[in-house]
Order: sequence, then C-alpha cells, then structure tokens
Amino acid sequence: MDFFEAVKQRHSYRGSFKDAAISAENLQKIVQTGLDAPSGCNAQTTRFVIVNDPALLEQIQDMHPGNKAMQQARAYIACIVDKQPSGVYEDLSFQVEDCAAAVQNMLLAVTALGYASVWVDGWLRREGRAEAIGPMLAVPEDKIVRVILPIGIPEKEPIGPEKMSFEQRTWFNQYHS
Amino acid sequence: MDFFEAVKQRHSYRGSFKDAAISAENLQKIVQTGLDAPSGCNAQTTRFVIVNDPALLEQIQDMHPGNKAMQQARAYIACIVDKQPSGVYEDLSFQVEDCAAAVQNMLLAVTALGYASVWVDGWLRREGRAEAIGPMLAVPEDKIVRVILPIGIPEKEPIGPEKMSFEQRTWFNQYHS
Repeated sequence: MDFFEAVKQRHSYRGSFKDAAISAENLQKIVQTGLDAPSGCNAQTTRFVIVNDPALLEQIQDMHPGNKAMQQARAYIACIVDKQPSGVYEDLSFQVEDCAAAVQNMLLAVTALGYASVWVDGWLRREGRAEAIGPMLAVPEDKIVRVILPIGIPEKEPIGPEKMSFEQRTWFNQYHS
Repeated sequence: MDFFEAVKQRHSYRGSFKDAAISAENLQKIVQTGLDAPSGCNAQTTRFVIVNDPALLEQIQDMHPGNKAMQQARAYIACIVDKQPSGVYEDLSFQVEDCAAAVQNMLLAVTALGYASVWVDGWLRREGRAEAIGPMLAVPEDKIVRVILPIGIPEKEPIGPEKMSFEQRTWFNQYHS
C-alpha cells in the first residue's frame, strides 16, 4: 500500500474483530517496522512481545479491557520499556519517544496489511494493569509494558474522528494563536 | 512509495543537503501526515511551524546546530507542544507520544518524497535553545519547540546505523532476557 494511503486509512479501531487468526509472518512483518523506527542515539530501547497464545490472551482479556478490539483480538503486540530509563544524551532519555515512533510505524503496517488496531496506553497505567501483565509475559522487573496494540481484521471499516484543519494547527514561519 | 519501502529507506540523515528550495506544496504534504497521526484521546496537541523564511533559518543556523542537515536546510518543520500539558485521560498527558507519532509519520513522508531529515530533540533541550527559538517563531509563552526536522534533498544516500536483530528485541508470548 502507498505510504500516504496508509496514513489516510489508519484510524484507531475499538470495534469488533473477525474471528480469524493472524499469521506469525504478518505479526513479524508488523513488528519489523517497529524495529526499523528511529530511536534517540540509536539506543533501540523498545522490546516487543507478540502475544498469540490463547491462554495468555484470555488472562489479559479477563482484566476487562474497555474496548472490543482488546476483548476480541487473537494477537497483541506488547511494547516494553525500562521503568527507570537511563540517559542516552547526557541525562536525557528518549524511551517514550522511541516507543511511540515504533508504535506509529506498526499502526501504519497494520493498516497496510488490512488489519486494524488501537494504541492502548492509559488503560495500562491504571489499577496496576501493566504491573499485572508484565509477569504473565515474563517481562523483567525493571521493565514495564508501556503500550499494547490489539491486532485483528475489523468487522466494520475504521472511521476516524473529526480532526482540526491544517490552518488550525500549522503556520508558515510565525505561530498564530 | 510503498509503505514498507518507506520504512526501509528512512534513515536519520545528518549530512549535506543540495542547495534546492523545498516547495510549499511538499512541505504541506509532509505536515499533513503529522496532522493525520493519532493522539491520545484525539486531543491533537502538536502544533507545527514550517520555517522557510531565509532570515529565520539563518537566525537558527547562527546557533551552530551540530549537524550539516540543520546547518544547510532550506526548510525546517518545528513541532510545538505545551510546556505543562494538562491531563486528557484522568491526569495523564500524551503530548510527548502525540508529537513523536506525528514526527514519525513526517519522517516517512520525507522519505517517500525523496527528501531526508533527522529528528532533532536533545539539542533543543540544552543551553536554552528551544526557549530562544520559540520567540523567533512567535510561539506562545506556554508552549515550547519540542522537535525540529530539517528538510532537504540529501547529497549522499542516507545510510542507517547497525541495528539489533528481530530475535534480540522480539519474542512470542514470553520475554527472553
């Protein structure tokens, strides 16, 4: 799929998925785009666990995630970062940015392959959910699941939310409040 | 350009640019992909100033940025966020992630259009540089330039750094330390 077409078609999808397995080949192809994303000082900080074991999916789905995509997905991609990142540029860490860039590549890859997903972040950071999911995936104690992407074939076409116009968010040379 | 090809071809480029202007049309096309990126709770927090006024470029280039791409670019895209972001999901803000997702889309767009760039972040956060550049671009006092992307036609082919393998960063179902 053309890059600009993938950008236009990508929308956060929280609806039902078709009951179809996702091939390991496609999951690897998606994660490879996350691995190929840039990272601050090329530190390549994000780690990935592809979850497609039904028993593990069920354990996470028993935690009552708030959207159908998470409830029904037959595969997740869990993105893992350090709990207390070290600096890579003097004392600055870019692990949040590194992970976000990887996630964005993967969301576009998901779209290009005909799947849909949604960037699940805040849900993990409430009620100890990330801390509960980590041990299920054998994540080391000094690391944390920062983002989960549920992957599936959407039952309905993903539709994007209303967005502000170019002129409302972008200017040439001088910001206009 | 095919999405997966854009991911493979995108590399951080710090070298010389050809002395060629970048059309406003292409700059808008690049920033549109940033506008189309997802954002936490669809808050669309990132703002963009496209800098192509030679006097402004010179002011920033007089600050001696450390790479040739920044020194020679005929256009920058400045990405602007709140200095003290409000929560959008309970008390959580996702402005760093929102900006990073927009930047990643734009870096792929840059590649797809035959340009090159590099994600400039840490440099801005040292020696008051972001605080100095903000007023040049009329950025409001409660906002800050978080990232700058210098845009140009690369003199040499961008070459990526060595990266870890799939197996070193990714596992199925269980993390392997």
